[in-house]
Amino acid sequence: MAGSTFGNIFRCTTWGESHGKAIGVVVDGCPAGLSLEEEKIQIYMDRRKPGQNRFSTQRKESDSIEILSGVFEGKTTGTPISMIVRNEDQHSKDYKDIASYYRPGHADYTFDEKFGFRDYRGGGRSSGRETIGRVAAGAIALEALKELGVQVTAYTSQIGNVKVDRVKVDRHNIMKSPIYMPDLEASQRAMEAIDFARKECDSLGGMVDCVVTGLPAGVGEPVFDKLDARLAQAVMSIGAVKGVSIGAGFTVCSSKGSDNNDEFTGDDPHENKRGMVNYFFDEDGNLISNIKSTNNAGGILGGISDSDPILLSAAFKPTPSISKQQRTISISGKGMDISIQGRHDPVIAPRAVVVVESMVALTLFDLLLTSMTSRMDAVVDFFR
Amino acid sequence: MAGSTFGNIFRCTTWGESHGKAIGVVVDGCPAGLSLEEEKIQIYMDRRKPGQNRFSTQRKESDSIEILSGVFEGKTTGTPISMIVRNEDQHSKDYKDIASYYRPGHADYTFDEKFGFRDYRGGGRSSGRETIGRVAAGAIALEALKELGVQVTAYTSQIGNVKVDRVKVDRHNIMKSPIYMPDLEASQRAMEAIDFARKECDSLGGMVDCVVTGLPAGVGEPVFDKLDARLAQAVMSIGAVKGVSIGAGFTVCSSKGSDNNDEFTGDDPHENKRGMVNYFFDEDGNLISNIKSTNNAGGILGGISDSDPILLSAAFKPTPSISKQQRTISISGKGMDISIQGRHDPVIAPRAVVVVESMVALTLFDLLLTSMTSRMDAVVDFFR
Amino acid sequence: MAGSTFGNIFRCTTWGESHGKAIGVVVDGCPAGLSLEEEKIQIYMDRRKPGQNRFSTQRKESDSIEILSGVFEGKTTGTPISMIVRNEDQHSKDYKDIASYYRPGHADYTFDEKFGFRDYRGGGRSSGRETIGRVAAGAIALEALKELGVQVTAYTSQIGNVKVDRVKVDRHNIMKSPIYMPDLEASQRAMEAIDFARKECDSLGGMVDCVVTGLPAGVGEPVFDKLDARLAQAVMSIGAVKGVSIGAGFTVCSSKGSDNNDEFTGDDPHENKRGMVNYFFDEDGNLISNIKSTNNAGGILGGISDSDPILLSAAFKPTPSISKQQRTISISGKGMDISIQGRHDPVIAPRAVVVVESMVALTLFDLLLTSMTSRMDAVVDFFR
Amino acid sequence: MAGSTFGNIFRCTTWGESHGKAIGVVVDGCPAGLSLEEEKIQIYMDRRKPGQNRFSTQRKESDSIEILSGVFEGKTTGTPISMIVRNEDQHSKDYKDIASYYRPGHADYTFDEKFGFRDYRGGGRSSGRETIGRVAAGAIALEALKELGVQVTAYTSQIGNVKVDRVKVDRHNIMKSPIYMPDLEASQRAMEAIDFARKECDSLGGMVDCVVTGLPAGVGEPVFDKLDARLAQAVMSIGAVKGVSIGAGFTVCSSKGSDNNDEFTGDDPHENKRGMVNYFFDEDGNLISNIKSTNNAGGILGGISDSDPILLSAAFKPTPSISKQQRTISISGKGMDISIQGRHDPVIAPRAVVVVESMVALTLFDLLLTSMTSRMDAVVDFFR
Repeated sequence: MAGSTFGNIFRCTTWGESHGKAIGVVVDGCPAGLSLEEEKIQIYMDRRKPGQNRFSTQRKESDSIEILSGVFEGKTTGTPISMIVRNEDQHSKDYKDIASYYRPGHADYTFDEKFGFRDYRGGGRSSGRETIGRVAAGAIALEALKELGVQVTAYTSQIGNVKVDRVKVDRHNIMKSPIYMPDLEASQRAMEAIDFARKECDSLGGMVDCVVTGLPAGVGEPVFDKLDARLAQAVMSIGAVKGVSIGAGFTVCSSKGSDNNDEFTGDDPHENKRGMVNYFFDEDGNLISNIKSTNNAGGILGGISDSDPILLSAAFKPTPSISKQQRTISISGKGMDISIQGRHDPVIAPRAVVVVESMVALTLFDLLLTSMTSRMDAVVDFFR
Repeated sequence: MAGSTFGNIFRCTTWGESHGKAIGVVVDGCPAGLSLEEEKIQIYMDRRKPGQNRFSTQRKESDSIEILSGVFEGKTTGTPISMIVRNEDQHSKDYKDIASYYRPGHADYTFDEKFGFRDYRGGGRSSGRETIGRVAAGAIALEALKELGVQVTAYTSQIGNVKVDRVKVDRHNIMKSPIYMPDLEASQRAMEAIDFARKECDSLGGMVDCVVTGLPAGVGEPVFDKLDARLAQAVMSIGAVKGVSIGAGFTVCSSKGSDNNDEFTGDDPHENKRGMVNYFFDEDGNLISNIKSTNNAGGILGGISDSDPILLSAAFKPTPSISKQQRTISISGKGMDISIQGRHDPVIAPRAVVVVESMVALTLFDLLLTSMTSRMDAVVDFFR
Repeated sequence: MAGSTFGNIFRCTTWGESHGKAIGVVVDGCPAGLSLEEEKIQIYMDRRKPGQNRFSTQRKESDSIEILSGVFEGKTTGTPISMIVRNEDQHSKDYKDIASYYRPGHADYTFDEKFGFRDYRGGGRSSGRETIGRVAAGAIALEALKELGVQVTAYTSQIGNVKVDRVKVDRHNIMKSPIYMPDLEASQRAMEAIDFARKECDSLGGMVDCVVTGLPAGVGEPVFDKLDARLAQAVMSIGAVKGVSIGAGFTVCSSKGSDNNDEFTGDDPHENKRGMVNYFFDEDGNLISNIKSTNNAGGILGGISDSDPILLSAAFKPTPSISKQQRTISISGKGMDISIQGRHDPVIAPRAVVVVESMVALTLFDLLLTSMTSRMDAVVDFFR
Repeated sequence: MAGSTFGNIFRCTTWGESHGKAIGVVVDGCPAGLSLEEEKIQIYMDRRKPGQNRFSTQRKESDSIEILSGVFEGKTTGTPISMIVRNEDQHSKDYKDIASYYRPGHADYTFDEKFGFRDYRGGGRSSGRETIGRVAAGAIALEALKELGVQVTAYTSQIGNVKVDRVKVDRHNIMKSPIYMPDLEASQRAMEAIDFARKECDSLGGMVDCVVTGLPAGVGEPVFDKLDARLAQAVMSIGAVKGVSIGAGFTVCSSKGSDNNDEFTGDDPHENKRGMVNYFFDEDGNLISNIKSTNNAGGILGGISDSDPILLSAAFKPTPSISKQQRTISISGKGMDISIQGRHDPVIAPRAVVVVESMVALTLFDLLLTSMTSRMDAVVDFFR
């Protein structure tokens, strides 16, 4: 499997390098008749694009998306949707010297080992710009999911040592924070931490949380294509992610069954749903749930959605490109000191928020379409 | 994608329910000429099988593997290898009442929602017995990897609040601990914790770590089929896993680039490799590395192996079946109290150790075979 | 792709060798709730099984199918359906000498070249018994298609120089002919031709035609997964098939556009449908059609079904195993004369009739399920 | 499976409509280090492009290919190769009226049935221009195969009632014939037949033959991914193809085993190879063979290549767009008479020659790469 294709029914194939002519994606298997125009997709692109504020790289790219096929008179036709973004602000000369050594934390070494050589300009295919195709494809999935009442919302939950207070998280604040951190107090402190790290010629790690509401029960296939398994692949495939968790995540290791099990409460909204202070949490800061008293499961039981919110967290490592001096080796194996110049994000997580939403949406829409064939009676009804 | 198939070139398809006639797997794409016999596979099966000691379910199954095809005169033929285990000790009557309600933390509810009904006997397809097929297939992958010098070793690193001290981990101790915890002091405390939990009619969560040594650089495909992405899917697809991490894992969220980046040290063993106290760690308790001074990356850069040990952790939730009283609903939505009887593991992680090894091996061998086509010069050489 | 799996949503994986312990198949992705029992599948198995009359091999096999998983209380559960047939009448000693040379027209040579050695007993994996798994899986697809009003009917249309007269074809006669040739006059002559060939220690080629009625319009995906393309793969994958055609087939090469184009007639049955003499043909021997005046297209336009009958033909080569003396080489490359003994079909086509039906059904049901996601409005309706 | 992707290891995804902005393809999984430049690919594009002579459509397109990614300093990098052709000469107004009715022999009706509406301009996705992506991808596969000593050569073997005399076929004449018919006498008569058909406002069918030399034995996977099965899918997926055959093709139906079986002759060239008059045929007009006395098998036994030339034929229907008056229905189901204007090929086969080569090459290279993992000893050697 060549590795640039994701999904089975709704599938996207991304292509392009950081400093090549363009970057793009082909989305195949999108149902016909979905309203789609470049403006809609551009909104998502703009959330990802560089140079938005001092917390992201200063590379200037308009990242204007162009739809080349698969849309006719404002609607998808059911045939492949090809989308392209031309690269503009390529300072390839910034990268010439990196052809001669291996940057710590980057894919330089492994690409050379695998392919024999590499397009070293700006990281080539392993650049963060690779996610342009993911976001463009994800935008279509997100729009389709909206039509089905499914909402995917990601946000920054941690940067360095600054974590959001989950009780204070309010989805309405996500876009108010330049770093998409919906606890605005934490957001302020996180921005200060980023400024400090940059001054130190260093970078910071972070965490992105994602909540999905409105997903019907029954999505995900048993065994290897479990909803959580496919989400894990999807999110772990984003560069810089070193961990993925669902629901209570790694805290389950130290918990007891009686604590971790979520009791079923039926679907009477009065009996079950606790009063909501904000979008995702009740007044005690507990995650809301439709059918269970708690949601440690993160909306997935046995790999299949249970209609409660899907809860996912992704750990992002600090940007490996730092101007602080580091020890490494040249491509001929000689030890050397380097200090990486160029225009780099001091932290990856905030710009990755829309990428996480995209990957989650690509997974969900593909498995949602797959779930249409789970029952013979529904199939018979469909063709009647 | 029906969900019961994993892998692209080396692929397995598992089948079977907990209380059906049998459970099995078909492995397709195994290269011809690998030595294989039932005895070899049985060794792995025995590590997984129930009733081994007081820390696992008391269901008695011989779990004897039978090879039905694909092996001729002791060698794989290149055609599908079908393997089967007959179910023997089925106390299906134990499960009759569970047909009428939804067990918290189980897949009962979601299977009903997805498929309209379920084989409720012992959890049906969502039972832990489903992993029999994974282990049988994984055994073949593990044997093939051994021929290539790749060693996959998993162990229990945490149970409840008891964690191994990484400096004290010694791979030679793994099999000395009934719960596969290679820090024997921690193992002792963990077993006490399990005994206590069982007395309380409760269960415990745990963590499994996995280390891969000997994997050459260049394994894993860029973008969606990154080695870590595919490992994440593989391991998250194991029932009860709620989180997967690579290398430094979730600790990267709060780290700085200068700390998290692993410096390249070249491949001079004298300069780079630190003296080893035990298999995985040097005398300071640091993870050993061939080409980097540290291994926060967990042997994967840009989704491609870098020849250093692959490091992976998986979070296992506590067994959801507990005899402690729980609140739930009947299949008609009425609230009720239940106490789950039957023969259940008080903790899942130890029996899952060999399952983690299996899933990691299935992923690695598939991607290793895939990596044979990465370079045109190697392809030309191959056919010369 | 290891090669033993077919289908995307509804997919089957076959396994087993002619003289191994057993032969079987795993069907994954079958919608839950389809009535299924061994007796139903056995009917299809019996049409394929050897030793039915003098026109097939005299190997005696009950070919009893056993369902091992995926069915609970008479209904499919949505999980993998594993089915197995034990081999019984293995005259492996008949095949010992064929280990030492390459039979003309067989896969002996190519298996050795590919895999380094082969399970020579009865052709191993390349035996006609490999189709057992196809028929068992196909039986499920055929039953599911029936629920949807789709009927797949194949028959022998030619053996040696004897062809059916298409005007005389009557589907009610298919089962009245021991060789499934629904023009009973032709059937008689064909049986005589087979008897003659056998006396000459020789074998005959033949053709199988397949007609699908009741398939709704819209099945098949543009470009590479066209309905005809997938049917071609499915049918050409049956051993001994050397050609596949759709509708007017190879006669199109010498036809003109004005002759070959089928005029659309709308869907008024009085205006369009010609009076039917028999199942597939009108009184002039023309193929019936719902929406077109003729059906040279064979029910497929642009790779997508048009609701008219699907028409497919497959060319089967003569059985390569003949007792007539042939020239060949030993595995060490020496020239030699051989005369193949053992129990062989004097003609392949008749026993392949049910195999063609199976492969067509596997293709149709998979693409029919796929077509459920073609339109966004239908998707939205489905989840409302 | 969305249908626009072909291949497993070496895979291409095509996109684009006849009158959209552009048409293109993404090739993923191409080994790194293959020399590649636009000029090389353009040679193949030019063989397909319209307006070359009076035997093809007069639409004027430069069909200039642009490589957007995956190539660095003249060599493939192992990452996706995105290629694009801008549409230029779009007479979309020619097609406005076809929005209102269904053209016989076209996909208008089935696209509407499947997707609810269609991009009617020039046939949209079902236009012959869709093959641009196939040829661009195929060009890469053909170049890679050349490096491995594999030569794929297709030619027109029949147009209307004019067939090449196989003894007179000389591959050196292929490019000398404007319709790629390497028996120049037949070529002359065929061109006259085309001229006559066009005067009659009609079109002609044709056949394309393809010969592959230099393919090593062992390519193709048993059962569903047999080399011939995958070739059948590949070639049948080309618009207008109604039949595909291998080797002796449909003539096997009426042949005897003793005639059809190819005797093995070992690999002594003096004993086996007959003197060659021309590229493909010996002095008696028999197809040449390396290891067999004849090649009715077409170089494939049991779905696996045997090192002899692969022989394949494809039947192309006459161009459905004819200016002769035809009966059809409007999109609202009313009967009507139409005469299709616009710029259409009077015959499809000649322009499809390079498309057949492309599809065959895409299949071969993918399966050739797959075959690298057939034997464990070769895998062990590879990684040693």
